[in-house]
Formats: sequence, C-alpha cells, structure tokens
Amino acid sequence: MGIIGTGLVGGSVGLALRRNGVVVRGYDRDAERSARALEMGAVDEVVASAATAAADADLVVVAVPVSIVADAVVEALDAGAPVVTDVGSVKAPVVEAVEAARPALAARYVGGHPMAGSEQDGLDGADADLFEGATWVLTPTERTDPDAFATVRQTLGAIGAEVFAVTPEEHDALVAMVSHVPQLAATTLMDVAATRGAGHALLLRLAAGGFRDMTRIAAGHPGIWPDICVTNRDAIVTALDEYVAALEQVRAMVVASDRSALLEVLDRARAARRSLPTGIPADVELIELHVPIADRPGSLAEVTTLAGALGVNISDIEIAHSVEGRGGVLVLLIAADDADRFTAALTDRGYHPVRTTLS
Amino acid sequence: MGIIGTGLVGGSVGLALRRNGVVVRGYDRDAERSARALEMGAVDEVVASAATAAADADLVVVAVPVSIVADAVVEALDAGAPVVTDVGSVKAPVVEAVEAARPALAARYVGGHPMAGSEQDGLDGADADLFEGATWVLTPTERTDPDAFATVRQTLGAIGAEVFAVTPEEHDALVAMVSHVPQLAATTLMDVAATRGAGHALLLRLAAGGFRDMTRIAAGHPGIWPDICVTNRDAIVTALDEYVAALEQVRAMVVASDRSALLEVLDRARAARRSLPTGIPADVELIELHVPIADRPGSLAEVTTLAGALGVNISDIEIAHSVEGRGGVLVLLIAADDADRFTAALTDRGYHPVRTTLS
Repeated sequence: MGIIGTGLVGGSVGLALRRNGVVVRGYDRDAERSARALEMGAVDEVVASAATAAADADLVVVAVPVSIVADAVVEALDAGAPVVTDVGSVKAPVVEAVEAARPALAARYVGGHPMAGSEQDGLDGADADLFEGATWVLTPTERTDPDAFATVRQTLGAIGAEVFAVTPEEHDALVAMVSHVPQLAATTLMDVAATRGAGHALLLRLAAGGFRDMTRIAAGHPGIWPDICVTNRDAIVTALDEYVAALEQVRAMVVASDRSALLEVLDRARAARRSLPTGIPADVELIELHVPIADRPGSLAEVTTLAGALGVNISDIEIAHSVEGRGGVLVLLIAADDADRFTAALTDRGYHPVRTTLS
Repeated sequence: MGIIGTGLVGGSVGLALRRNGVVVRGYDRDAERSARALEMGAVDEVVASAATAAADADLVVVAVPVSIVADAVVEALDAGAPVVTDVGSVKAPVVEAVEAARPALAARYVGGHPMAGSEQDGLDGADADLFEGATWVLTPTERTDPDAFATVRQTLGAIGAEVFAVTPEEHDALVAMVSHVPQLAATTLMDVAATRGAGHALLLRLAAGGFRDMTRIAAGHPGIWPDICVTNRDAIVTALDEYVAALEQVRAMVVASDRSALLEVLDRARAARRSLPTGIPADVELIELHVPIADRPGSLAEVTTLAGALGVNISDIEIAHSVEGRGGVLVLLIAADDADRFTAALTDRGYHPVRTTLS
C-alpha cells in the first residue's frame, strides 16, 4: 500500500492498515511530517517521491489538500498503481480532472471521502480507530472498473468504515448542504455576533450553550475552507441559496407573528434532528444480492450509487466475472432490512437481482 | 419569598433560596406541578393563587411563559409585593406593559433574564446549582427604584448568579443575536437538510460532528419559540436581516472564488469563537466604587446598564440614601480590572465616582 500525504487522515489509514498486517509505504512533501509518520508507526517506510510510493503498491491512498489531489492521483496512476483512491472533501472537479487528464487510466481511480478527520489536520491526532464505524463515501463513475471499486471497498471495510457510493456530483451537493454551508453559516453567525459585540462587551457573555454549540466549528482550523469553497463553488452557492431562501421564509413568519407556521418548522426540524442516524448497529442481519451486469457498461456506478441514494450501506462487494470479458455479476452484501427496497429499486431500473440469505 | 410558576427556573430558584434558609411560597396554575415542587423541596408551601404567593413576600420571582409574564407581574404588584422580578426571555414588551398598566407601582419591578434554563422547561431538571456562575441580566429603567434593584441583585448574587444590567431594549437586541436568531438558524438548517434528505437517504448519514453541533438546539423543546418570536419580533427581524446580509457577503466571496476574503472572515470568526468568555474567575480582586446620584433621576439604570454595556459585572450594589430623599450614593462592588474603564466611562457621562480598595 502507498499513502501520499501523511497528515491526520493518511496517517490514520496507515496505522489502521498496518495493524491489519499490511505493509505501508508513505510519502509527504513535508519531509518532517513523513518522518514523524514513520516514528509513530503509521508507515513502514518513507520514500522520496509520490511515484515511488505508488510504484509497487496494490492500492494508493492520496490524502493531500483538495486543491492538489488530482495531480497526485495522476502521478500515482502514471507510476503504475493498479488502484488509486483519495480522501478529498470535494469530488466532481477532482474526478473530472483525473478522467480528462488520463482517460485510459481513470478506470483504476475511485474517488473517496471519509466523513471523519480532515486531510489537512495534523498528524498528531492520527488514530488507527478513526474510521471505526465512520461513513466513507466512494464516487464511482461509468468508467470505474468494478474490481478497483471492490479493492477500495474491501480495504476500507477492513479498517472499520461503512462504505456508501454516490455519484461525484451528488457527493458534492450533499456535503455542500451538511458540511460546507454549515461551516459558513457558523462562521458568519460568529462573525456577525462578534462584530456587534465590539460595541457591547456583554453580548458574547450572554452566549449560552446553544450559541456555543452552533459556532463550535467556527473555532476549527480555517485553512482548508478557502480551497473547499473554490473547488465546490457551484454546489455551495446552490445550497447557500436554499438556506437563505428558507431563512427568508422564517423571517416572513416572524414578521407575520405566525405562531403555527413557526411551530410547524420547529417541530419538523426537531423530529429530523432527533432522528439523525447515529451509526449502523453492529449486529445487523446481512443478505447477499447477486446483480448480473454483464451487458451493461457503467452499471457498477449505477448500482452502487443507487444504494447510496437509498442510504443502503454496501457491507461488501465482489465481482464474479463472466467468461466473455467485461462485466459479470456484482455480489453485494447488504443489511436484510434494506433488501426489499433496494431490490425493488434495482428491478425498476431493469436489473434482475437475486437474493440469497447467508447461512 | 414568593415564586409564581414552579417550572425549571422557578423550581431551581426555590431550591437555591431554601438552601440559603429563605422561606419560599409557591404558586403554579398547574396544581400538579406545584405539588411536585413541594415534594422535591423547591417551596415550603404551595398556595392557591399568585396573589397569595405575593402577599407577604419580600420579593416575588415570576417564572411563567413570556406571553403571560406581564399580567403575573401586575398581579404580584397589586397584591402588595415590595419587589417583583421575572425571568422571561424577552424584556422590553414586558417592561413596557407593566409600566403602562401600573405607572405608580412599576418602580418596584425589575425585569430579569437568567441565561440558564428556560421558564418553560420541566421541573424535573430543577437544580439548586443551576445559576452558580450563570449570567443573569437585569433590565432597570429610569423608573426603577434603586433599593428594589439592590434587593433583586443581592438575592441573585446569593444563589451564585453573575449579574449584569442592560436596558430592556438592549437586552432584546442582544438575545435576538445570540439566542433567538441562532435557534432559528439551526432549525432552518436542519429543516432544509432534512427536506432535501427526503430524496436522498444518505444525506443525513453524511452529517458529521459539525452539523450535529450546529443543529443540536433544533432538537430542543419548540414550545417557547413561537411566543419569543412574537414578543421579540422586531429585534429578531433586525438580527436575522444582519445575519442574512452577512451570508450574502460570504456567498459573493464564494462566487468570486475570493480565497483571501474568505480566509479573513474564517480567521476573524475563529478568533472570536476562541475568545468567547467562559465565566468569571472565582477569585477576582474587587474594589468598591461610590457614585453619587442624588440629583440625577434615572441614574440607577444609567449607571448599571453602562456597566452591562462594558461587560462589567456588578458583584454587589447598595444604596446609601441621602437625607434629602430620592437618590444618594450607589455603592458598587466590581472587579479591580474593570475599574479604570468603568470610572472613565462614568466620568464621561458626568458622574463623579470615587474608588475605594477593599482591605
């Protein structure tokens, strides 16, 4: 395994993989940081270039800031890595850049984004358990090779992550709404309050628990956000506009003293907040689903991102190859509770899934 | 002491006062709740009406929902209570209503708002220590009797609260910014995300810690908010407009891919968030400030709200009455560190404060 970028996420992946007995080669453009990764056992060996880290690896994980991810992925592909994934917070521009730069090699790249840690945080917080139970999104496209996808999925499963697949564009729209806009909303609220507080020292003393909760993320490391805002600009603007439009609606309810409309929004949001998923239960009954995809190019992405859209976690995936070449049968392991709606959705799209209960 | 409304705040005040040896009489329109307050030791005696609770009390605390506070305060004043305070989340409309209804009695009413608990939360969370170190805002006006203010301040100090004074209008503008708008912002964000998530089950699973922090207050009891929005409408609309205007500025930075402008806002908000006050240190050196106010009606409110605006906690206050009648000398106990800027501000306004170091 090769890891390019040994910060918090890269280092944690290294620690987790090495605990599983995998040999990890690491590279970081900051030599001090890679030396520190070696010292703390996140890599077996530090190498002098990204290409060397990628050369003999079965899988390369690129964990560098989002503005330079695409170049590093291309470098790893050029160095001959059979499978490459990354951990950047924005996916569509990266995936497009890689596919445009290396159309012939891009099948071996699977975009990824763990919802834990940040690729730009310090190595000091690195932890072999960082991804235990964490959601990790993969963004296969029509070009993605099913075997490459299965390799990445299995590696991530082995370090404890729950893997979901969505299209790169969907990923970017989703994180704009649940991560990027919340960050900007918290930062802006803190800034507005502090600016007004400049004329009134008591203001910030009145900030009780709710305000502290809401602005906590504004205290985080700001370095990654300009990059994210630039890279995911369109999705962020769309989500921000939705948020502001909704605030304007609430403002109208306040102006109209419309208690019942306000209560309706408050009740709806309360119910949604209380039902936020808190991770997948450890003991779920699993079933195996066989989905023939022989004659349908791009079906890996279609099937897996359909699962993602339905919130169905793919606990495992294998490809049973047909003798005629490309395609074959996708063998998916999913929760039994998810099986009915997932098979129904697949059938709607013209697939013929066959379900097997594990004995 | 009389307590009208024995919910979380009323019950906690009762528990704290009784621990200090004060005899507390309680009334709640919900007889079950007042019986429960008696059972848990929050009151010595349950009485059958607000007027009875107020009749022989030295001080009455009104802890009922903000929409009915003014009526309850008037009832307590009419019953002969020498000093009345309340704990409602909105102040100007309440204070105006009381002063309009009972111009001759309103001097004995001091509006208040503890920044801990809510007047509508359940009694079960009541705690004698709820106000230990909590900020408690009082809102004296030109009509407020200095002795009434001192009585309320001393009672609150005895149960551990840090007392600040601001005008009712300032209070409402401040809490709109640090409490009411944050609540609406969190609720709206949760609602927008959940609405979009209805078409994409994965969305809410991607919600990591930041989103969870930001929307936590949306999970709280919604019942009080329509009342607050109606009662504090104008201040909320003003603060909401400031917030939306600031979001539009940030949107423009994202559209322009203006990294440095974004970083500037992020850095500024981060610094502000990190310097949020976390309570007053227990061991501060105090000084005594004597402020003659004999010839200046309304100066209690002016002096104390000036302290509030400067973030100066009034650790104690007494009135040394002049023999000629109204007014005299305000004796304030404040932190030595605050003394210079507070005396300077008082001098600017034509006061002649005299400072005494406590020995």
